[in-house]
Amino acid sequence: MIKVKAISNKAKNKALKRQNQLTKPQGSLGRLESLAVLLAGHQKRECPNIVAPWISIFAADHGIAEEGVSAFPSVVTQEMVKNFSKGGAAITVLAKANQAQFEVIDVGVLEDITQNGNITFEHLQSYRVAAGSFNFLQQPAMTIEMLNQAMAAGCAAVERALEQGADLFIAGEMGIGNTTSATAVIAQICKGSVKEIVGVGTGIDSIQKTRKTDVIEEALLKHKACFTEPLEVLRCVGGLEIAALVGAYLACAEKGVTMVIDGMITSAAALVVNEVAPNAKEWMIFGHQSVEPAQQLVFERLGVEPLLDLSLRLGEGSGAALSIHTIKMACLLHSQMATFSEAGVSESDTLVE
Amino acid sequence: MIKVKAISNKAKNKALKRQNQLTKPQGSLGRLESLAVLLAGHQKRECPNIVAPWISIFAADHGIAEEGVSAFPSVVTQEMVKNFSKGGAAITVLAKANQAQFEVIDVGVLEDITQNGNITFEHLQSYRVAAGSFNFLQQPAMTIEMLNQAMAAGCAAVERALEQGADLFIAGEMGIGNTTSATAVIAQICKGSVKEIVGVGTGIDSIQKTRKTDVIEEALLKHKACFTEPLEVLRCVGGLEIAALVGAYLACAEKGVTMVIDGMITSAAALVVNEVAPNAKEWMIFGHQSVEPAQQLVFERLGVEPLLDLSLRLGEGSGAALSIHTIKMACLLHSQMATFSEAGVSESDTLVE
Repeated sequence: MIKVKAISNKAKNKALKRQNQLTKPQGSLGRLESLAVLLAGHQKRECPNIVAPWISIFAADHGIAEEGVSAFPSVVTQEMVKNFSKGGAAITVLAKANQAQFEVIDVGVLEDITQNGNITFEHLQSYRVAAGSFNFLQQPAMTIEMLNQAMAAGCAAVERALEQGADLFIAGEMGIGNTTSATAVIAQICKGSVKEIVGVGTGIDSIQKTRKTDVIEEALLKHKACFTEPLEVLRCVGGLEIAALVGAYLACAEKGVTMVIDGMITSAAALVVNEVAPNAKEWMIFGHQSVEPAQQLVFERLGVEPLLDLSLRLGEGSGAALSIHTIKMACLLHSQMATFSEAGVSESDTLVE
Repeated sequence: MIKVKAISNKAKNKALKRQNQLTKPQGSLGRLESLAVLLAGHQKRECPNIVAPWISIFAADHGIAEEGVSAFPSVVTQEMVKNFSKGGAAITVLAKANQAQFEVIDVGVLEDITQNGNITFEHLQSYRVAAGSFNFLQQPAMTIEMLNQAMAAGCAAVERALEQGADLFIAGEMGIGNTTSATAVIAQICKGSVKEIVGVGTGIDSIQKTRKTDVIEEALLKHKACFTEPLEVLRCVGGLEIAALVGAYLACAEKGVTMVIDGMITSAAALVVNEVAPNAKEWMIFGHQSVEPAQQLVFERLGVEPLLDLSLRLGEGSGAALSIHTIKMACLLHSQMATFSEAGVSESDTLVE
């Protein structure tokens, strides 16, 4: 089993002491103070910094999409992979603007786009496990071998990131139908009411939403006997890119890399990871609150709070990428602000409540 | 009276049309979509951009501080002005990291620091109206002349910003005692319960908090007869830097400059401005939710929502400065993402709800 790397409490304590000497009322920088202290623990130094963020997007198709649970057809998965490669998607704009390394990994898009003529796709890694997961209304979404292979693809991405000196790992996802899979995973592990947590995904109407709810409920009943452990939930109703996310997050927790979790899909993966390795969340920053209601169940179960709330429901790692700047600013303020004695500023008359 | 500049609805409509053609489900970028559309209206073009943000910090002392309403002594106001000048404060770190022009304006710090020897203070503008406002438990915080002079100092800052080509104006504040003044202004205009909206400011204990509540309640009773219009509330229980903020925001609304409002103090000023010129809020983005409870009353009265919520209670324009990046990203995504037709991505099967 995975052994989560320990965080340095010594560095956290040093950072906390420094925070309380900076020229501001104690605690007045709120979340930025605790972020800087957490990062100090991750990086084992009083003044942490983020200089090389990394973004890996895992893409795969879902057999369950044939049940009419999405507003977009499955072909959009591969079309968006091409869009990532060409730099026209939200996440590619954000990656560039935030000086993050970017790659997209095909772990099971329906069609292998690299077989289509002589076009070279930039930033594309091919770790194809299958031409999509199976329709989990009929059979488990993945075999054990598919699950393991997809998780290994996630782990390999983290290894590439570390080879390139990454100090912050963001995983994103693309896969038409994947809010259905992720909602099923969350509902099963958190024992949530499917009806209450099903969202609009890419923008479905109320008839499709009812269908999506029915599909998830039926699937959870069908595979009930298999749900003996979290990875079996993932295998039966998850998807290839969600399995890759789980593999990536487990690798980050083991190697000790700061992760920023994105929206509902990645939160489903983070949930599975914390069921398997409960301390993994110490290496996780939850980048933003998604519009998808299922994510809230994960936050409650893990006892965490997201950084941003911009009413996003896009995925692709976009919310996590937007939060890079906030994390960078937390580090900069921590290292560059003057202390009371350096600046000759008088300290508080009273103790902070 | 001030005439608020009209926003271009033509540009907003063009921008909205563009948003709906970008390669993402409609509405999935949430607040970033409405921000881009708003900025299009401000800048009268389909694809707006922020390239020259500007930050003016107004500093002044408060006679009311002698009532023991703050955790820090008044001398901290001038000490922090020096810290701003030397680059050791939170806002100066953020200004530099976000490529914003920065200045601090003395509108009434107790001691004139420029008279103290040969030291030159960088980024410091001197628009001293008085050596602090009066203790408003005894008399109005300002005379009419002081109010007008302070407001003019705010207006002058916006003029400097525009001369330098600023396309985003942030005002911040520094003044020991100013959460007391701003809370009094908000309580009076919004008819709020002082007890419910008084916050810890720089970090006062419960005894001081009771004292702060009593001081505000007593002052509002004392000046009751004068509260015939919003600017009179500002004059009687506000402060010099809050008056400067009001002057700056009115100038921005008149000239048509995008403003980002910071925390509770600046929200009190934004409230006064919208009482005087109700459409001014069309030029305002509320950068963040402060820990100070009084700010919520302003949001409710104006019907606005803040962008970030990082549990800050520092002031200095820090929350607004942190939100510059989000606003920039909204513009970049809007202008740089590919459209469905450009990227060859299939559109939605269904209409968005």
